[in-house]
Amino acid sequence: MSASSRIPVIAQPFVSDRAKKTLDLVEEFVEKECIPAEAVFTAQLGGGEKRWQTTPAVIEELKAKAKKLGLWNMFLARSHFKEGAGYSNVEYGLMAEILGKSKVASEATNNAAPDTGNMEVLAKYGNEAQKKEWLAPLLEGKIRSAFLMTEPDVASSDATNIELEIRREGNEYVLNGSKWWSSGAGDPRCKVYLVMGKSDPKNKDTYRQQSVVLCPADAPGVTIHRMLHVYGYDDAPHGHSHITFKNVRLPLSSMVLGEGRGFEIIQGRLGPGRIHHAMRTIGAAEKALEWMIARVNDERKKTFGKPLSSHGVILEWIAKSRIEVDAARLIVLNAAIKIDQGDAKAALKEIAEAKVLVPQSALAIIDRAVQAYGAAGVCQDTPLAYMWAGIRTLRIADGPDEVHLQQMGRRENESRKKDVMAKLKWQQQESDRLLIASGFKSKSHL
Amino acid sequence: MSASSRIPVIAQPFVSDRAKKTLDLVEEFVEKECIPAEAVFTAQLGGGEKRWQTTPAVIEELKAKAKKLGLWNMFLARSHFKEGAGYSNVEYGLMAEILGKSKVASEATNNAAPDTGNMEVLAKYGNEAQKKEWLAPLLEGKIRSAFLMTEPDVASSDATNIELEIRREGNEYVLNGSKWWSSGAGDPRCKVYLVMGKSDPKNKDTYRQQSVVLCPADAPGVTIHRMLHVYGYDDAPHGHSHITFKNVRLPLSSMVLGEGRGFEIIQGRLGPGRIHHAMRTIGAAEKALEWMIARVNDERKKTFGKPLSSHGVILEWIAKSRIEVDAARLIVLNAAIKIDQGDAKAALKEIAEAKVLVPQSALAIIDRAVQAYGAAGVCQDTPLAYMWAGIRTLRIADGPDEVHLQQMGRRENESRKKDVMAKLKWQQQESDRLLIASGFKSKSHL
Amino acid sequence: MSASSRIPVIAQPFVSDRAKKTLDLVEEFVEKECIPAEAVFTAQLGGGEKRWQTTPAVIEELKAKAKKLGLWNMFLARSHFKEGAGYSNVEYGLMAEILGKSKVASEATNNAAPDTGNMEVLAKYGNEAQKKEWLAPLLEGKIRSAFLMTEPDVASSDATNIELEIRREGNEYVLNGSKWWSSGAGDPRCKVYLVMGKSDPKNKDTYRQQSVVLCPADAPGVTIHRMLHVYGYDDAPHGHSHITFKNVRLPLSSMVLGEGRGFEIIQGRLGPGRIHHAMRTIGAAEKALEWMIARVNDERKKTFGKPLSSHGVILEWIAKSRIEVDAARLIVLNAAIKIDQGDAKAALKEIAEAKVLVPQSALAIIDRAVQAYGAAGVCQDTPLAYMWAGIRTLRIADGPDEVHLQQMGRRENESRKKDVMAKLKWQQQESDRLLIASGFKSKSHL
Amino acid sequence: MSASSRIPVIAQPFVSDRAKKTLDLVEEFVEKECIPAEAVFTAQLGGGEKRWQTTPAVIEELKAKAKKLGLWNMFLARSHFKEGAGYSNVEYGLMAEILGKSKVASEATNNAAPDTGNMEVLAKYGNEAQKKEWLAPLLEGKIRSAFLMTEPDVASSDATNIELEIRREGNEYVLNGSKWWSSGAGDPRCKVYLVMGKSDPKNKDTYRQQSVVLCPADAPGVTIHRMLHVYGYDDAPHGHSHITFKNVRLPLSSMVLGEGRGFEIIQGRLGPGRIHHAMRTIGAAEKALEWMIARVNDERKKTFGKPLSSHGVILEWIAKSRIEVDAARLIVLNAAIKIDQGDAKAALKEIAEAKVLVPQSALAIIDRAVQAYGAAGVCQDTPLAYMWAGIRTLRIADGPDEVHLQQMGRRENESRKKDVMAKLKWQQQESDRLLIASGFKSKSHL
Repeated sequence: MSASSRIPVIAQPFVSDRAKKTLDLVEEFVEKECIPAEAVFTAQLGGGEKRWQTTPAVIEELKAKAKKLGLWNMFLARSHFKEGAGYSNVEYGLMAEILGKSKVASEATNNAAPDTGNMEVLAKYGNEAQKKEWLAPLLEGKIRSAFLMTEPDVASSDATNIELEIRREGNEYVLNGSKWWSSGAGDPRCKVYLVMGKSDPKNKDTYRQQSVVLCPADAPGVTIHRMLHVYGYDDAPHGHSHITFKNVRLPLSSMVLGEGRGFEIIQGRLGPGRIHHAMRTIGAAEKALEWMIARVNDERKKTFGKPLSSHGVILEWIAKSRIEVDAARLIVLNAAIKIDQGDAKAALKEIAEAKVLVPQSALAIIDRAVQAYGAAGVCQDTPLAYMWAGIRTLRIADGPDEVHLQQMGRRENESRKKDVMAKLKWQQQESDRLLIASGFKSKSHL
Repeated sequence: MSASSRIPVIAQPFVSDRAKKTLDLVEEFVEKECIPAEAVFTAQLGGGEKRWQTTPAVIEELKAKAKKLGLWNMFLARSHFKEGAGYSNVEYGLMAEILGKSKVASEATNNAAPDTGNMEVLAKYGNEAQKKEWLAPLLEGKIRSAFLMTEPDVASSDATNIELEIRREGNEYVLNGSKWWSSGAGDPRCKVYLVMGKSDPKNKDTYRQQSVVLCPADAPGVTIHRMLHVYGYDDAPHGHSHITFKNVRLPLSSMVLGEGRGFEIIQGRLGPGRIHHAMRTIGAAEKALEWMIARVNDERKKTFGKPLSSHGVILEWIAKSRIEVDAARLIVLNAAIKIDQGDAKAALKEIAEAKVLVPQSALAIIDRAVQAYGAAGVCQDTPLAYMWAGIRTLRIADGPDEVHLQQMGRRENESRKKDVMAKLKWQQQESDRLLIASGFKSKSHL
Repeated sequence: MSASSRIPVIAQPFVSDRAKKTLDLVEEFVEKECIPAEAVFTAQLGGGEKRWQTTPAVIEELKAKAKKLGLWNMFLARSHFKEGAGYSNVEYGLMAEILGKSKVASEATNNAAPDTGNMEVLAKYGNEAQKKEWLAPLLEGKIRSAFLMTEPDVASSDATNIELEIRREGNEYVLNGSKWWSSGAGDPRCKVYLVMGKSDPKNKDTYRQQSVVLCPADAPGVTIHRMLHVYGYDDAPHGHSHITFKNVRLPLSSMVLGEGRGFEIIQGRLGPGRIHHAMRTIGAAEKALEWMIARVNDERKKTFGKPLSSHGVILEWIAKSRIEVDAARLIVLNAAIKIDQGDAKAALKEIAEAKVLVPQSALAIIDRAVQAYGAAGVCQDTPLAYMWAGIRTLRIADGPDEVHLQQMGRRENESRKKDVMAKLKWQQQESDRLLIASGFKSKSHL
Repeated sequence: MSASSRIPVIAQPFVSDRAKKTLDLVEEFVEKECIPAEAVFTAQLGGGEKRWQTTPAVIEELKAKAKKLGLWNMFLARSHFKEGAGYSNVEYGLMAEILGKSKVASEATNNAAPDTGNMEVLAKYGNEAQKKEWLAPLLEGKIRSAFLMTEPDVASSDATNIELEIRREGNEYVLNGSKWWSSGAGDPRCKVYLVMGKSDPKNKDTYRQQSVVLCPADAPGVTIHRMLHVYGYDDAPHGHSHITFKNVRLPLSSMVLGEGRGFEIIQGRLGPGRIHHAMRTIGAAEKALEWMIARVNDERKKTFGKPLSSHGVILEWIAKSRIEVDAARLIVLNAAIKIDQGDAKAALKEIAEAKVLVPQSALAIIDRAVQAYGAAGVCQDTPLAYMWAGIRTLRIADGPDEVHLQQMGRRENESRKKDVMAKLKWQQQESDRLLIASGFKSKSHL
């Protein structure tokens, strides 16, 4: 069954024939080209410190193939960008699911975070000079980029806490501060940072204090101090950097959109990005399920004379995983369609649902697959442990689950409480009226 | 926001304008007429043994109103029955969600189980005489019916275990055996039982041993021994009966479809019925969420100076409930659309997903609402405890969750294992080939 | 294996030989006398309104037997009361577990709530006249009693919210207000209420506003308006009453301990009571496990040719239930020993752990048993549904889980944060010092 | 509060004053010496391939200190070994909890796996020559060892599947096969392997086919092919090796205990080892809770103006973690006491309970701490991610949870079903007898 024929019936009206064709092409490219190439990628990367100076040749070969196949920049949504490949969010979402099955496929098709979000920012908010300098080579896959927001010493899930200073001095901005979890900054091809900082810390409107500037990776004063690990993985060459800025001087033309508009920029950036992450995560969950199926039917791995697939507990894991991944996918597709039909703001609730539900479901599914594999599941012989670690960070990145749940809960409660309480009160009064009219005592007599 | 405007965007292409209008009308009828009337229904029913001889007047009044509004028999799907109201399964599903918010609304609109399934059976498999005698009054809401399948002494989740004997003697069938959980048989208006039994116990095909016959409720030899409770509730006047058959004699014309075709009948009956149950259950979960919201904003119920809605744990409950109910609804709607586009057989997986997921989600949501209410949540002052108990049975009825999970897991595993194993094996070989071609060692060298 | 030989090894040093003998006697009495008598109790109670005027004869017969066996008032702890049977809390706790397996055993041995807590209050705080009038007949099992605290219109989990007015007028107290969930007040033998109310609502110390008075059940102005249900159960003849007080006049001698000392009284009342509840609940969980084992080996209930006990999922349920009940028991026994070695105040944390953990574990275990039984599990043919409903209220009674978790979390955090933060800070500084001494860079250099 | 004063009251009778003193000394050593030294250990280890040739100097310094303090070989239980330090399993268990808070403390005190289990094997089953050659230097901490059981190509959780060939040829054994997850074999000080293999593959008793032999790490034909990772951690210098044996020749004196006695050896090895693992894991969970407390009170990490510790969700995490870790500890201590009072065989159920419960609880607790830390939780800046990954393997090592649950469930069911069914049947008959005697109908009349 091809990827296009697996689209849930409920989503089919939203997927064009062109997108279906591309989707099947993506699947072929990912399963036949990308996944087998992963071992070469790892081997070419090697060990030790040179991991951070290397670009494995195989990734550039895959990029060339993808471009030739027309599998390039599919993430740039139809409605928003003239540079885009012309797919809707739901259409690209289905492709992102497939891309999520390989750790090289997103980059191979130039759909890799954080470049995707950065390209969106530049396409939406950049001026022509900025587009020419940075967007063009990004769209062509010639350079990579990073988005520097999180800081080590503050609770960055509340972005108003951000402290990196962007001080104007004459014709320059001067940056001082430190950033961490600057994903992608480890890559030798990463040439530009989008840096969020405070340009107007005394503004009474706490959402107007921040700006985003474009900073070349090799600007004097920029130092990568160390690389952060995720459950032992260094994610080289991409990596997660801890970077300091010491009197880094940038021309005024580095400012994106305008001073004080940092919040506006990050908000526009988040909606579709969350859909991409969510769909790639669903792809990872599907991959885990495939690996689990392969294991539980492995003749060499019989226990007590039976293959694992004959055990009821294992069958229950498979069934629950199937339900969870299907439910999670529908939640994301519905959110993507909502974005397609309006914008990310109208889809706030739907995006938050996807943001919270998908990683939790995927982690449960992958963890079951790990358990089915036993020792092979926790080590480098399966893709499972690495996928788990990467997805575990999604419960934290862009705000921890708990913050999203609080906000969702508060919105649901605030937006509904007046109507709900009025309705239930009216129903109770009407109920009392009917009881009395029918010769009974009111229930509110006590 | 009206019910039609709350339809998830992803489902909107599948709902006609006519169905949307009806949906909003259903909501108005349920919220304004049915729910306030529930207390009168309970009061008219009274206590003691007369609960089983009473038909509360208010239900007949509601039925008259519903008929006048055109809210009648909406469950009979467009595609299958000329007697139907002309809605698709997904359209009626959305209506069933609203009906599920009131314990009288399904009956008030003649969409109540088990009559719905029984009418489907009669419409699909009954002959003209059977339709005239039983389907016509059922469609008009003049009588009620029961479906007698489960037996006390066997594991009925495997229907081949059924033992009630249907023996042919001359021009008659003679029935001997006992049935329980005969839901609806307690109602004084219940006039007919569809009885599943064994007419050919020696047939080598264990799925051809069973037949379904039509048995008048007042046939000599039929005895209702007692009524079963569900967590203390007797569900009068509907009820769940324990019934014995002692030499009950029925004419040959009582046979539905033909001897040995019992399995065929129950299988055709299950698909849409599960969608109905699932969507009503989602309505109950939404109702529990409304009641929870009303409680946590209740000024009189502040603890330690703050309304419950200011507590993070409560907001998390609301948010999780929102996510769970939205995910569950999409799973059911997708299954309904799959039935609409093919038949219940093609939608086996999707229906099973809904069957398992929905009650579990709803029980968790209702239980949170109970907890938010405290003592009021477990007693008769809220609808919560009663809804919980009713929905708890859905994890058992029509086969326990575990049986469905085993079957789903087995189907998923069996249908995919060959392809998945071949693909992963090919990918590993291809990976080794690429490694060697790139000058590295194969990973399978050990 | 007798009950005494099943005591966990870790608890054995705390159980005297005398208590072990009694424990085995309790088990024999419960399993051989009480449990078989339950059906007679239910039958003698009958249906309809007379349920509230009846005392089933069988309970008085059981009481006579128990007294003769010396199984009477075992709850009154050795250390506290001269009237007690001389067992420690941990010793009685083990007996309470056995009593919890029968719904009549606690009363049959005069160890039933709320009488137990009320007897403790009277023994600890009552004056001689009060003891003579009420404690003596309670200790003999001649009358029953209720404790009236919860009110319908306030959030009673915060007891400072209580509003029932206890106004002094000359030589009398005048009571006005309403109470609900007055458990036991439905019983015709219930002769006295311990009523918590506000005698000094303006006292600046919000914990000195409350008093407890003794009110005869037949005092003029006292009305039982209705009985509350727990899920569908009415718990007759015991019951849960909704009671109003309208100018109920009591002599000054009704005051327990003194005006303004209500909080002191309820706090002393809670510790051991929670141990009793918890251990009875563990008994119920053990009973559910026994019933589950009986079911899954039932030859008549084979599915697909195999008994349920051959299914891996079922075996996992049994194993998890075993672990959960054993862990919960150790938590309660440890708390009981802590009370025995100090007082309930020193055991605040341990009691809270038991209060929260035990009902949640028991509900999970019972629910698995329900699921294993299918339809029989939710109805009156097994004790499971009734046990579940009763134990569900324990997550609410005496404060909902969430309040206890907040308090536990806050206490743990407040009592430890200073030391923990100081220790971790010192360790980091020491670590930096060692790094530098060994020729490395400090980790805090960024 | 010192470690000895934190011993649960229920366990205190089982801990001698001498053990309490040692326990407090262990705590001081771990918190003040070991934990601060961990960063030096990591720094001295360095990166790249030399990680596997290095012994960080700091560990030898710590060992010298520990020996001087008398904190050495505490694991060797009083009852079993003359070489032991003289503590019972429950006493050492409490010490192991403290050791589990540091990743160097177990080795620093010569209580590190797999040496502990190997020393037990040699002390119990080794002959004098074997003891002299290998046990003596192990007891002194001069060499390290590995236990080679698991194999890559079979389902090793069923140890009868093991395939490594131990063939006798004249005066030698010849070994062929491969092993993986040979933990500790990476360490340059690891001098001896205990190798489990098949010496008699045709023996009809499948539990007599296996033998254990002692193999020097530098024996010709032994090759360490690669090191396995746990999530992304390599656990250097200890490590988890994938090793092949190609015609490795060993003298007959290498055989432990006797040919065909491999199963006997591994079974004796498992009981106390599981207690050690479980208690260390509880120490890790306690450490995670301390780190969580430190974080949620961190002034710099306020969100929306409040420290995390003021959020209800966080307080609930702390409270639940407290309950879970306390329950898990009691389960392990009870199992340890059971071993102390009999042997590991009598404590089968209790050990299995600990084996399954402890890692699951600890993983949940650590994961909450990760979530409280956000990005810092998944990386090298806290000990959390590394602890999580290590403990995740405990759900797999020595048999996956599912195998233990199946065995526990089966034992519980098999050992109890006859008695339970007889009792319930008798109770129902007795109940019927009583009903009839009281003038009611029997309940089994249907």
